[in-house]
Amino acid sequence: MSNYSNFSTVNEQMRAQSVELLRADEDSHGGVVVSIEEPVDSVVFASLLGVSMSQWRQQGKKGVWIKLPLEHSNLVDAAIKQGFRYHHAEPDYVMLVQWIPDTADTLPVNASHRVGIGAFVMNNKGEVLVVQETSGRFKGTGVWKMPTGTVNEGEDISAAAIREVKEETGIETEFLEVLAFRQSHESFFRKSDIFFVCMLQPLSFDIQKQTSEIEDAKWIPVEDYAAQPFVQENQLFDFVAKICLSKSEGNYSGFSPFPTTTSSGKKTYLYFNNRDVKHLLSSSI
Amino acid sequence: MSNYSNFSTVNEQMRAQSVELLRADEDSHGGVVVSIEEPVDSVVFASLLGVSMSQWRQQGKKGVWIKLPLEHSNLVDAAIKQGFRYHHAEPDYVMLVQWIPDTADTLPVNASHRVGIGAFVMNNKGEVLVVQETSGRFKGTGVWKMPTGTVNEGEDISAAAIREVKEETGIETEFLEVLAFRQSHESFFRKSDIFFVCMLQPLSFDIQKQTSEIEDAKWIPVEDYAAQPFVQENQLFDFVAKICLSKSEGNYSGFSPFPTTTSSGKKTYLYFNNRDVKHLLSSSI
Repeated sequence: MSNYSNFSTVNEQMRAQSVELLRADEDSHGGVVVSIEEPVDSVVFASLLGVSMSQWRQQGKKGVWIKLPLEHSNLVDAAIKQGFRYHHAEPDYVMLVQWIPDTADTLPVNASHRVGIGAFVMNNKGEVLVVQETSGRFKGTGVWKMPTGTVNEGEDISAAAIREVKEETGIETEFLEVLAFRQSHESFFRKSDIFFVCMLQPLSFDIQKQTSEIEDAKWIPVEDYAAQPFVQENQLFDFVAKICLSKSEGNYSGFSPFPTTTSSGKKTYLYFNNRDVKHLLSSSI
Repeated sequence: MSNYSNFSTVNEQMRAQSVELLRADEDSHGGVVVSIEEPVDSVVFASLLGVSMSQWRQQGKKGVWIKLPLEHSNLVDAAIKQGFRYHHAEPDYVMLVQWIPDTADTLPVNASHRVGIGAFVMNNKGEVLVVQETSGRFKGTGVWKMPTGTVNEGEDISAAAIREVKEETGIETEFLEVLAFRQSHESFFRKSDIFFVCMLQPLSFDIQKQTSEIEDAKWIPVEDYAAQPFVQENQLFDFVAKICLSKSEGNYSGFSPFPTTTSSGKKTYLYFNNRDVKHLLSSSI
């Protein structure tokens, strides 16, 4: 109630003085989000920001966000000089933030991980799909590796695995399960990395490599893949190869994706060991 | 060879003209990384950057990175005006990048995911550790939930689960396995999210809540947790509760962490269904 009164008072004062404020939308956490759409001079912006911050402070606002598209880079310095810091950036914008209250901030953290996939595609002859890359650490080594790639923002892990196999080899696949995953750190600047080893079933068999990244692609017996010195000498690759061998013999259960809906209505996939709880979930599925 | 000749020629010309260049280190992908340490005027910086870019272009450099700490925000605009774009940002710096060649860039993508954990801590009486939070969507609902939290950059999933349980309840735990995980999208701006449901074994039993985030904490029978209406009415929570029940009866195998070393000597954890491949890995372990 008192917040609302303050708000009205400030607004009336502002109107009386014809003071212009930055355009901002309220967020659901007691903060405001400033969006800059038209070009604005940095000195004018600095003045508007100062007045706006005074108002938001009086209104008891918490986090103030300023999203600056690339074309408004002239405003970054002015905002930082008034106490803003970087929150995150994407190719086309930088997001600045300032926490107004004296309490510790409850601002969400930045994205911390990149996510990658490796795809074991095994046909019913016990052969796996392997590639040689035109660049990277395995270039020119003669090593045959599984197709790998990066999961995009907003992309399902299963969809990324299917897409990478298609891009690298032209093979259509169905996603079966996640066999294992590895978390590693400082993979890129200070960021961490999660790499999901996936099992897929091929729906086509004629290899047609699609990208310039791939030197060659073929089907080889999974035992030949596992017997490569680079696989056997690397504990991680060796484990993963053994898991795949076990899977090919029907003795391993990974995590399968199951589509669910969150309470807010969002579609998501839950990955779990479906074999072990099939009986429990049968009523729900 | 021709690259090297060009390099020498340009360097000699530069020396002859006493032209100052920006300090930059070469990276391992044919690019350079500029670090600004001393305060510099933005007009002086713009001029140095122009000359430096000409040289790097002649040398056939690929990606040019400029890391600008918060206190050098006066230089952001000058770099963007010369064709740089944002790559990523952390609270204390923004990273700008420009790809020089005419070919498609092979610059690494930004971090795309945030990673969270939920911790099922079950004692040998079949009770799980549950909490009520002082804020968030479950505040005041009477719902008892498992402790949850965010995995920090550089932090192991298993360490994050142990840390969050300790912070919220004071209980010491040992990490057992990942029971399931869920990937969802647009959890924060355009970023995606992976949430790992973990099983932990308690090593202490007296609850002492540690943070202001927690209203209350207690041990309840896992059946009582699963019987809560909010759990039963939400497909995702219901699945997870059933998986936990199954686990408590010894009928479920998730992914356990196993420490491995990568070929570059980095310590990482591989998470997999250890039960199903114990016989295969025994020689390696």
